[in-house]
Amino acid sequence: MDKINVIKVGGAVVEDATSLKQLINQFATMPGYKVLVHGGGRSATRIAAQLGIESQMIGGRRVTDESMLQVVTMVYGGLVNKRIVAALQAEGVNAVGLTGADMDIIRSHKREPKMVTMDDGTQQMVDFGFVGDVDSANGKRLTALIKPIEGVEAVVPVVAPLTHDGKGNILNTNADTMASTVAKALVEDFDVTLTFCFEKPGVMANADDDDSVIPTINTESYAQLKQDGIVSGGMIPKLDNAFDSLNEGVKRVVITHFTDIEAKRGTIIEK
Amino acid sequence: MDKINVIKVGGAVVEDATSLKQLINQFATMPGYKVLVHGGGRSATRIAAQLGIESQMIGGRRVTDESMLQVVTMVYGGLVNKRIVAALQAEGVNAVGLTGADMDIIRSHKREPKMVTMDDGTQQMVDFGFVGDVDSANGKRLTALIKPIEGVEAVVPVVAPLTHDGKGNILNTNADTMASTVAKALVEDFDVTLTFCFEKPGVMANADDDDSVIPTINTESYAQLKQDGIVSGGMIPKLDNAFDSLNEGVKRVVITHFTDIEAKRGTIIEK
Repeated sequence: MDKINVIKVGGAVVEDATSLKQLINQFATMPGYKVLVHGGGRSATRIAAQLGIESQMIGGRRVTDESMLQVVTMVYGGLVNKRIVAALQAEGVNAVGLTGADMDIIRSHKREPKMVTMDDGTQQMVDFGFVGDVDSANGKRLTALIKPIEGVEAVVPVVAPLTHDGKGNILNTNADTMASTVAKALVEDFDVTLTFCFEKPGVMANADDDDSVIPTINTESYAQLKQDGIVSGGMIPKLDNAFDSLNEGVKRVVITHFTDIEAKRGTIIEK
Repeated sequence: MDKINVIKVGGAVVEDATSLKQLINQFATMPGYKVLVHGGGRSATRIAAQLGIESQMIGGRRVTDESMLQVVTMVYGGLVNKRIVAALQAEGVNAVGLTGADMDIIRSHKREPKMVTMDDGTQQMVDFGFVGDVDSANGKRLTALIKPIEGVEAVVPVVAPLTHDGKGNILNTNADTMASTVAKALVEDFDVTLTFCFEKPGVMANADDDDSVIPTINTESYAQLKQDGIVSGGMIPKLDNAFDSLNEGVKRVVITHFTDIEAKRGTIIEK
């Protein structure tokens, strides 16, 4: 079975010109089949602020009202995505920018208001607005793009964190979830490695010590790490996505630094 | 040879909820192969204004400095494009949003400063900034998307007026030119009809009289219409694109109202 790398990069990486360039160079030279999934939250917050729209985050997730939906649609689907696509084209990578709506690749439904643990520890009902929880992904369509057909060059999908509900609505969707969704959708046709890249060298035992990377995390040690408070905040949904991917056929999941997209170091997630 | 319709719709149509809905319904029910090319200038002007960026238009064309490039990349490639894609998906059309950078479909180069006739009739050197003049289009790649391959559903491209220069830069490109470029790129594989849709019923002898539609324009009558001042402003590049398309193998070019995308009325352009 052909191997494929699904690389997820966070907003902080793609929104800084220097780190974006490093990422693009690495991704371009990475051999074999590949997909890039990106965030863009910092740009969305910046553009929203310029438009006089306040960003409200709860538990690390963006509350997306109608005006914020407009911002994320512009920023994720347009500004960030097309910049990456053009930069990859310049490096000879035949990239295509996609949201979940494009080719109906990822469908979701609008999240119902739900009980959330707030930063102060209290529970509260939160309506996240136009946020999509994924229902299905079209792996066949992605595979048809990624694997070359006769006379047509293969393409490399660059996926923005937006989905659609099939009723005409774009929905804001967490980029880690997008990456996990894409990875799982490809397991029928590929041997899939999912790599979450960010500005840290991996999951760290001590947030202030770059040498404290935890080399492997499995289901058991994950439970312990959460209990001990070593893993918390935004790392929890990332790891939940990682385990979910492994449980649904993804072969290898790594969390590593964005300068290490071939994941020679970092934290390996095991079932 | 299979027939295909390349439909270009102006910004005024896609930016109004009611006319967009009419357009989407019509486009969705139109039989056969099809491509939609859209503008978005009014949204770009509105979002730019909200960001405190002034829109400068010369001879109907937008001057695109770095901050305006950011706006058009967001608005054309993200906001307008993805809304149309999601709306078409809701009508069962398997749309994919593309800029010229995606799959390297349309390459351009940055326009050099050039002598332009200003609105007051004077000549002046103008630097339009990050504006792309088209160099080449990849018809084979478009055809591979449009015509179904075994086991994969065909898709309908929705093209935003942005190109790239192959060096990593997105460039703002006139939507009529994009439509003409796409139409010409498809002539090897399809019998192509190019339809420019806007909020008027066609090219009119009297701008204030909707019953004054000129049924056909050919090279000779075009020269006369320009000389008489009946055709002027933004209609000139549109008609230049129309004749250019016919000269390069497009079978039929029509300018008509956006409620008439199958072009039963309107102005037919003939060589």
